[in-house]
Amino acid sequence: MPTHYNRIAGQSVERLAALSDGVFAVAMTLLVLDLHAPAAEAIHSERDLLHALAPLAPRLLVFLMSFMTLGIFWVGQQVQLSHLARSTRDLTWTHLIFLVAVTLMPFSTALMAEFLGFRVALLLYWLNILLLGVLLFASWRCAIAASVLKPGLPPEVIGAVQRRIVVAQALYAVGALLCVFNTYWSLGFIVLVQINYVIAPRIGILSRL
Amino acid sequence: MPTHYNRIAGQSVERLAALSDGVFAVAMTLLVLDLHAPAAEAIHSERDLLHALAPLAPRLLVFLMSFMTLGIFWVGQQVQLSHLARSTRDLTWTHLIFLVAVTLMPFSTALMAEFLGFRVALLLYWLNILLLGVLLFASWRCAIAASVLKPGLPPEVIGAVQRRIVVAQALYAVGALLCVFNTYWSLGFIVLVQINYVIAPRIGILSRL
Amino acid sequence: MPTHYNRIAGQSVERLAALSDGVFAVAMTLLVLDLHAPAAEAIHSERDLLHALAPLAPRLLVFLMSFMTLGIFWVGQQVQLSHLARSTRDLTWTHLIFLVAVTLMPFSTALMAEFLGFRVALLLYWLNILLLGVLLFASWRCAIAASVLKPGLPPEVIGAVQRRIVVAQALYAVGALLCVFNTYWSLGFIVLVQINYVIAPRIGILSRL
Amino acid sequence: MPTHYNRIAGQSVERLAALSDGVFAVAMTLLVLDLHAPAAEAIHSERDLLHALAPLAPRLLVFLMSFMTLGIFWVGQQVQLSHLARSTRDLTWTHLIFLVAVTLMPFSTALMAEFLGFRVALLLYWLNILLLGVLLFASWRCAIAASVLKPGLPPEVIGAVQRRIVVAQALYAVGALLCVFNTYWSLGFIVLVQINYVIAPRIGILSRL
Repeated sequence: MPTHYNRIAGQSVERLAALSDGVFAVAMTLLVLDLHAPAAEAIHSERDLLHALAPLAPRLLVFLMSFMTLGIFWVGQQVQLSHLARSTRDLTWTHLIFLVAVTLMPFSTALMAEFLGFRVALLLYWLNILLLGVLLFASWRCAIAASVLKPGLPPEVIGAVQRRIVVAQALYAVGALLCVFNTYWSLGFIVLVQINYVIAPRIGILSRL
Repeated sequence: MPTHYNRIAGQSVERLAALSDGVFAVAMTLLVLDLHAPAAEAIHSERDLLHALAPLAPRLLVFLMSFMTLGIFWVGQQVQLSHLARSTRDLTWTHLIFLVAVTLMPFSTALMAEFLGFRVALLLYWLNILLLGVLLFASWRCAIAASVLKPGLPPEVIGAVQRRIVVAQALYAVGALLCVFNTYWSLGFIVLVQINYVIAPRIGILSRL
Repeated sequence: MPTHYNRIAGQSVERLAALSDGVFAVAMTLLVLDLHAPAAEAIHSERDLLHALAPLAPRLLVFLMSFMTLGIFWVGQQVQLSHLARSTRDLTWTHLIFLVAVTLMPFSTALMAEFLGFRVALLLYWLNILLLGVLLFASWRCAIAASVLKPGLPPEVIGAVQRRIVVAQALYAVGALLCVFNTYWSLGFIVLVQINYVIAPRIGILSRL
Repeated sequence: MPTHYNRIAGQSVERLAALSDGVFAVAMTLLVLDLHAPAAEAIHSERDLLHALAPLAPRLLVFLMSFMTLGIFWVGQQVQLSHLARSTRDLTWTHLIFLVAVTLMPFSTALMAEFLGFRVALLLYWLNILLLGVLLFASWRCAIAASVLKPGLPPEVIGAVQRRIVVAQALYAVGALLCVFNTYWSLGFIVLVQINYVIAPRIGILSRL
């Protein structure tokens, strides 16, 4: 029986991490491509320039929100990869599909920034976050099923990783639901959730989310 | 006799892997640059936005197809590099020319997405895949000829790597040939081949391809 | 009590360095995207081409200034990371927010290049540099507070890192202040400060800055 | 006396290599951004599409020439870095300025592709190659002067690296000079020089260049 290519493919955690870091780095930097300097022709004074820059403020906020999203999921993926002894073909592909969702983020962000008040834009943005969460969850389950976690990993860690993803996605879903009132409520809620994950306050219930 | 520069150049597998991960990461992320948010002027309602987004669906599919292509070849190159004890100047250049084919993928993808029904676009897209396959095959032969494979590598692995490339390229060629009927038949067939490689089903003949 | 995700997240200095190198590399290369080849239609002679390229000179200078800025802060971050035994969740996020400021640099640069004579553009550019400095300082303090510096690090190094950031930011602030006269004075002063840091002359006071 | 920041900055060869790989990867991939799919409006048949693609052929050739240039200099920098025991602040900055020349390559390439017959475009393109060579030479001299080469490096290697850069730059200069006749002579000559370096034929004089 011939050696199956599938048994020797996609073993390296290091190269998966390197590719992921590259994709995250490019996606994070491309987010900003949506911020354009205003055209010089219409600008004749400092005041003109300030006025021309003002409409960029909401785009900047959406950019910051997306950067936080990517940062949160980069940290999340890093936690998983740091606990892998090796990878498998299936696990590598789960992470590659996770990277698809990462590369879609600049598009979702541009759409959200252009159509701040539109539910369609918000729901597509949330779908992107959901996709990131589902695939990160799937890659963790895949790693457990393939028994490629580093030996000696405490079972609490396995649970903590899963709980974090599920709780975060529940909160993001609540945020998305708030768009029945208004997309700005949704965006505000999602940003608060993200800030909570970024600063990780050590107070009561918030630190357990 | 002077030391030839060519004997000391291009030895590092690590840096070749790092450059390759970088090129793949940028190419994967640039694929999405072809997805543009619709212009805001013409959009006055949620329905308008949905209608404006609909034409992006085929582009999204072509994007996913290209991401799968790049993922498959990234895994394929990783398998080869992970078995190298060191590199040589010639081998490094074979991989660099392989990277040329990688960087061309965003262009081929944009062309395919813009001209879905055109055989010229499909054949150029297939030519890009063929180029990736030929160069990956050449780099493996080059590694064998230069005796830089890690010692103790079972001969079956050598065969498995070659067989995989040849079978895959044969299937892609069948896909390209289907354009005598219709480019959509070609695209559908190629996507099925790729999905087979991504999910690697463990059933009968499919798992041996 | 469940294991907190926050205790196991963001530990890897290697991946933080890899992501940072990626973000810096993309930002440095995107700076140049602002240099466009002139449109071919209006160019009929070598002289026409030279004339069409002349307006790119100030853009090239702003590009070089921004490349120096990014280079200086890349070296600065590298010094910090090279002294870390490990990272923490908070420290990782401080560096991620530092990377936000890095990704904003291509935008600030494009704005500065387009509006060379405008104080608004200059002050936003300086704000970007200030943000880089504040976050680099914060990440160093955070590393000290979390006791994650490599053991045996001489206390003088800790002071040298802080002193460098504070002195540099003071000089940049002086440069920004010079815009009460003229933005060109500001730009000239900032470039001189940067050249001092790049070539690091070994003469008297300059070598201590 | 306080510890000088300049003595502790820029020591890591690994991070310099990682940043360089990133910059090269982005620059190599951005070269292709200049290849645009033709606009769909004017294309109504396969023949139209073929005709619309034909003008891309010279751009593709210039792209390949620039990819070869970047590949040659990436290999050249890799040879140097692989022989460094550590880096210094000055050496790091020499390489950073070398990376400036790398990031300028997509612009020079776009200019050359747009103005194939213009000497101004050719000479700027050559200036970019010259800059790459001068800085690579300077970084090698800097490494020797700082005594950071790995111990035990045979002196012939030191000479081989320098000889290669000088000979290559002499050939590129001859190529540039040929533009007194015609820029196409120059481009043809430069491409031949590059192909010689890529395939490194093992015949007589060519293998010594």
